[in-house]
Amino acid sequence: MTVESREWYLASYAPQGVPNSEHLKLRTVRVSLEPHSIPDGHLAIQTLLLSIDPYIRTRFTGPNNLDGLYFPQFHLNQVITGVGIGRVKVSKDSKYKEGDIVLVFGDLPFADYSVISSTKVSTKIDHPTHDDDAIPLPIYLSCLGCPGFAAWISIEVIGKPKEGSNVFISAASGGVGMIAGQLAKLKGCRVIGSTGSDEKVKLMKEEFGYDDGFNYNKEADFDAALTKYFPDGIDVYVDNVGGKMLEAVLDHVNKHARIPLCGMISQYDKVWTERDGVRNLLNLVGKEVRMEGFLIGSYFNLFDDFAKDMKEYIKEGKLKPKHQINIGIETALDSLNSLFTSSNNGKVIIQFNA
Amino acid sequence: MTVESREWYLASYAPQGVPNSEHLKLRTVRVSLEPHSIPDGHLAIQTLLLSIDPYIRTRFTGPNNLDGLYFPQFHLNQVITGVGIGRVKVSKDSKYKEGDIVLVFGDLPFADYSVISSTKVSTKIDHPTHDDDAIPLPIYLSCLGCPGFAAWISIEVIGKPKEGSNVFISAASGGVGMIAGQLAKLKGCRVIGSTGSDEKVKLMKEEFGYDDGFNYNKEADFDAALTKYFPDGIDVYVDNVGGKMLEAVLDHVNKHARIPLCGMISQYDKVWTERDGVRNLLNLVGKEVRMEGFLIGSYFNLFDDFAKDMKEYIKEGKLKPKHQINIGIETALDSLNSLFTSSNNGKVIIQFNA
Repeated sequence: MTVESREWYLASYAPQGVPNSEHLKLRTVRVSLEPHSIPDGHLAIQTLLLSIDPYIRTRFTGPNNLDGLYFPQFHLNQVITGVGIGRVKVSKDSKYKEGDIVLVFGDLPFADYSVISSTKVSTKIDHPTHDDDAIPLPIYLSCLGCPGFAAWISIEVIGKPKEGSNVFISAASGGVGMIAGQLAKLKGCRVIGSTGSDEKVKLMKEEFGYDDGFNYNKEADFDAALTKYFPDGIDVYVDNVGGKMLEAVLDHVNKHARIPLCGMISQYDKVWTERDGVRNLLNLVGKEVRMEGFLIGSYFNLFDDFAKDMKEYIKEGKLKPKHQINIGIETALDSLNSLFTSSNNGKVIIQFNA
Repeated sequence: MTVESREWYLASYAPQGVPNSEHLKLRTVRVSLEPHSIPDGHLAIQTLLLSIDPYIRTRFTGPNNLDGLYFPQFHLNQVITGVGIGRVKVSKDSKYKEGDIVLVFGDLPFADYSVISSTKVSTKIDHPTHDDDAIPLPIYLSCLGCPGFAAWISIEVIGKPKEGSNVFISAASGGVGMIAGQLAKLKGCRVIGSTGSDEKVKLMKEEFGYDDGFNYNKEADFDAALTKYFPDGIDVYVDNVGGKMLEAVLDHVNKHARIPLCGMISQYDKVWTERDGVRNLLNLVGKEVRMEGFLIGSYFNLFDDFAKDMKEYIKEGKLKPKHQINIGIETALDSLNSLFTSSNNGKVIIQFNA
């Protein structure tokens, strides 16, 4: 038996700018689900959900690029991959059987169907379909997945705000930001976020419980905005955007502030020599600030602690994720671009028609 | 009895550029050494040595300045102060007596004689004049003083290189750099430094034991220089200069590198909006780098550990400081400026004619 499968592939490199339909194209192929055609140690997967994350944009830039994130570049014609959840259709690994739901970090093709090595599977998800209390699958791509883990590391491992600390979150209603802000609120912090629309400011305040927030498109003088929202300075800044916002923050940090760097979405679509220079790093000395970048892969030894925390918060209703579920693989390019135009609303996930 | 005393005072603010004789002027006053004219809890001090440190330049900028270091600004007409060693001439505090040698961190006037609160004294130095094994006084302003402590914090507390780590030091033959480099060598690291003259490159290699080094004026393409000197990347960068060198380093850091920020001398003479922007901070994320600024004042709980380490190294001949001793208070302005033109050679200290 073979099935039709649509898949997104890299048609041309995108050294700068937001990728468009010249760079990423959708094609239809046929995938065999005959067991004899699946190599040993491999699984045939039907994709159920794909996570749309900003970092992936840095993988379209082209070879020999010094983007600063250093994720492997996709080759021309290669099917792009990301984080997602799929159902095992055929298993050639005794650890998995048909019908298993599996989570794949980073290497799940943007395709209806794919054949991958079972070593790419991060975890099997116990997902009883007739249990009303079961954790909905999209949660595994937000609170319990990469964005949630990045948020948890930012707050619990690097930022470590105390009760009453002044915490600032950029991209505050996005996949990482919305969870980081809520985790900081759970620690009793005063939390302010920046985001790209009034609607999302409302979401942050009414749904996520932020103390306040601002639309960076309207309050374009970041220094003035931070003066207004942080009369007592910033103790922890969870940076998801970099560039001008990071520079503005450095003039408002308190002594011994911590700045976990999750990512810098404002910089991904620029070649590095044209990126925003941060001129006031001397604040790091005068205010004795620790600024620390991280990737979640280095913290998997803490994943169980994270998952335990999060499951409890979710069970107790203390964490409210917001998902923007776009339907169908054909929405992938628009879904990705919505992150860069800030037209998304919460964590963007593609749900397959399957 | 009164004595004549020359003193440097701030005649006009220096918002940018290297301070000159318009900004800092020398005047002669008379200071009374009559005990009844010294307030209780105060000491009349005859200055013996003054430390010339880059940070002091940031105190001439003027009020309301956001320089990033945030040291208090000197007022117009105020005698400037710094780190130094003096001899007590008159004591109105029972803890000190005439003839005591005292170390003052930060608040010793640039003057032949001064009257200061005894609370400004950091420590009394046990300095038997007829003991050939006594630690020479200038050592208390280098290895055993602020620059030594900053170097020790950079290496032992923040940078923590391991045996075999690749360590890069900027301003590598200056007060902090020369000690940081030697401490890294004592830990078995491969240590490379950058400095401002061929003569100082030679000093670094032949006296301080650096594995190699380069003159940043000759190798002005920092990226090429770092490619050459760090084929295996940089694990720890002790940053004393900031700006373009810091930017270049960020393209050569290894995974989990640490960057202790001691200071940024390349930026002190610029208003902050004209400072060099660092465009490639995204490397901090991709390489998971920790960049951390500090001031020694936050680490005094570790001072005894530091002093113990250093005294042992000095006793065993494992640390070789280099001092540029300039004679006479009248050399203060030139001494300071030599730091910014990199025409100094080692830790700059003014020895008084006393």
